[in-house]
Amino acid sequence: MIFTNSKNSGFKAEFEELLGRGKMDIAQVSAIVGNIINEIKSDKNEALKSHIAKFDKWTPQSDADLKITTESMSAAYSNLDKKLKSALHLSYERIKSYHEKQKPKSWFDTEENGTILGQKVTPVDSAGLYIPGGKAAYPSSLLMNVIPAQVAGVQKIVVCTPTPENEPNELLLAACHLCGVSEVYKVGGASAIAAMAYGTQTIPKVDVITGPGNIFVATAKKMVFGDVNIDMIAGPSEIGILADDSANPSHMAIDMLSQAEHDEMASSILITPSQKLADAVKIELENWLQKLPRHEIARKSIQERGAIIVTDDMQEAIELMNQIAPEHLEVATLSPFELLSYIKHAGAIFLGHNTPEAVGDYMAGPNHTLPTGGTAKFYSPLGVENFMKKSSIISFSSNAINEIGKECALIASTEGLTAHEESVKVRLKK
Amino acid sequence: MIFTNSKNSGFKAEFEELLGRGKMDIAQVSAIVGNIINEIKSDKNEALKSHIAKFDKWTPQSDADLKITTESMSAAYSNLDKKLKSALHLSYERIKSYHEKQKPKSWFDTEENGTILGQKVTPVDSAGLYIPGGKAAYPSSLLMNVIPAQVAGVQKIVVCTPTPENEPNELLLAACHLCGVSEVYKVGGASAIAAMAYGTQTIPKVDVITGPGNIFVATAKKMVFGDVNIDMIAGPSEIGILADDSANPSHMAIDMLSQAEHDEMASSILITPSQKLADAVKIELENWLQKLPRHEIARKSIQERGAIIVTDDMQEAIELMNQIAPEHLEVATLSPFELLSYIKHAGAIFLGHNTPEAVGDYMAGPNHTLPTGGTAKFYSPLGVENFMKKSSIISFSSNAINEIGKECALIASTEGLTAHEESVKVRLKK
Repeated sequence: MIFTNSKNSGFKAEFEELLGRGKMDIAQVSAIVGNIINEIKSDKNEALKSHIAKFDKWTPQSDADLKITTESMSAAYSNLDKKLKSALHLSYERIKSYHEKQKPKSWFDTEENGTILGQKVTPVDSAGLYIPGGKAAYPSSLLMNVIPAQVAGVQKIVVCTPTPENEPNELLLAACHLCGVSEVYKVGGASAIAAMAYGTQTIPKVDVITGPGNIFVATAKKMVFGDVNIDMIAGPSEIGILADDSANPSHMAIDMLSQAEHDEMASSILITPSQKLADAVKIELENWLQKLPRHEIARKSIQERGAIIVTDDMQEAIELMNQIAPEHLEVATLSPFELLSYIKHAGAIFLGHNTPEAVGDYMAGPNHTLPTGGTAKFYSPLGVENFMKKSSIISFSSNAINEIGKECALIASTEGLTAHEESVKVRLKK
Repeated sequence: MIFTNSKNSGFKAEFEELLGRGKMDIAQVSAIVGNIINEIKSDKNEALKSHIAKFDKWTPQSDADLKITTESMSAAYSNLDKKLKSALHLSYERIKSYHEKQKPKSWFDTEENGTILGQKVTPVDSAGLYIPGGKAAYPSSLLMNVIPAQVAGVQKIVVCTPTPENEPNELLLAACHLCGVSEVYKVGGASAIAAMAYGTQTIPKVDVITGPGNIFVATAKKMVFGDVNIDMIAGPSEIGILADDSANPSHMAIDMLSQAEHDEMASSILITPSQKLADAVKIELENWLQKLPRHEIARKSIQERGAIIVTDDMQEAIELMNQIAPEHLEVATLSPFELLSYIKHAGAIFLGHNTPEAVGDYMAGPNHTLPTGGTAKFYSPLGVENFMKKSSIISFSSNAINEIGKECALIASTEGLTAHEESVKVRLKK
């Protein structure tokens, strides 16, 4: 763990290391992923089956075997523990309610000369959602990807998830039933991304692909980008915390560990002007690690990718955090809203002592699919807009084109585009 | 040219050809572009200079030579013809006014238990705009890329444009001055994209890269995507026209040619239920071609990539056009707004007989950077949102976390994430 003060002589190098966190070496897997994509493009279902046999250790006997039945989804839902069912429903409702508020509207504006300008917003026809399988099969990932697509109004929603040894995750199946998703395929990794991008005999080609995944999935998404749209290229999870003396050190430590337990590659970074808090959190990290079932993963993550930085003041802490641009940012201070104006880059901002990052993973409502590795400087959280696109609307009356037509034709002619010029001139009054 | 009826036996194959238009063979240039990017990453300015010597046929003598002086921009502006200056100002004002309406707002909502949820929208820190040089150096491209970045509030705007034989396009320089852009570099192609994505001694690394370009530029944009954000991967320009008997055949023909004159690879596709209109437009195309200075390019484009399709009725015409998802769509019918609900996929929609596509290139206000090759099914026009990103806002009171905390902890525990569970439980009232 980096435990440092911004005044230390070695700080610049330490901080550079943090800025470089989450860099994925896509070049390293490009050749493999490129081959997988080409195989799916040319051999479609046959390639899928052979990839499944290789990576998931089971052999589909027919094309129909690739699909999970709706009966198995409804059975999984029926078998859910009652309290869990009710918790998932609450989660579903809160996520839906938030995303409905986020939905962009078509708009137009008129000018007195008969001009109408605007923007029509429409859902994409189809979306493909990738949900990791095995140990990282989270029902919450399904909700967070399905709901924005449904709120957008996407007609065709397809889910792909790997089922190692042909054993689907029952919780995921139950969540599919809860969300009303019916088209779920037992396909994972780069093969799934390629199948949804280009289509096979069984899996339809879609317009947009979203969802988390490992470096093979991320690389495949980058490679198919342009032929379909994608949400973002995401890496390991991470948390940044800005805290002052009012923060509870034990809470800060467990919040850091809630990222660290995801993945050895996860980063947890606390920046505070309080040396007292920094020292206390360091001790609490160890206390919590003694108790956590996933302590091995969490300890490795904290040791290799954790950081506690003490700054001169909160302003410096914020400036450093803006450079880090964390996926999750907790602001654990006395008056967190006072700092909101100065926070420029973060996927999601959790304000105040009662808002642990974990509420955002399941229950608050906003999406938990967020930009990582500093890409919050230019990417947004997954949302309804990822499943919609816009068309500009332009309508001119005869008066309108006569008002601006000459100037328009002049620019066209200056650019040497005579047909452009003529197409305007023929509409002008003589 | 495809001149056909949707009832023809060969129609399906003809239509497939249209759907496959604009496919770019990125794989074909990937190796070259990959090398260019790697050279810029490792040798920075020195690589830029050697690429300029090779591709643009001049040799920068110093790092300072890479930059266009603000003096030369203001001189170019002063030298502008008065009428053209006023036309460019009108264009600037109209584009700015439209994009201001498009700017997304931060929002929040409160719940009675003390929950605050919302979305904060902030500009990216920096944007790099690529503007092609040489024969395709259009001042309108500069306006259409700079203005949305400025409206978004981007603090650092960088422009790259190639200057073959070290001769900048004076109109482009004038437009830079008009827009108030001061950081313009004489660098083009994949080198420019790599320089803005990774930075050199002279060209700063940016967060978002936008702008048109050839296949090398498009491929470079795809390759740097993830390290920066990009707008879209665009191919040759295209127009689709839906028209009925009320349309003027000569206008339809010149509108088709206004795309065709851009590029031999451009597509112009008219779909109409009127055989009479179809026949008349075919004749008018030839009439106009006799008169156009750029007739060689336009003729080749119409011959190889033009199409006139006659359908049974307007509904079928719209269905076909939705499959094509054209960059520009003209609706040249008696009551175009009546059809707007049924049009699902198009970059920009031009409604009515007084709205030639060319008004959208210069003067209407909406952006002329639009998705091509059917990607309007999932991409949007360039806009203010390309230069902004969102952060989710989550703030819980003590009451709020107590209301949903148990359910939240239960899902976390079901997913096996104990630290997540504990981070919520420690905040609950005992």
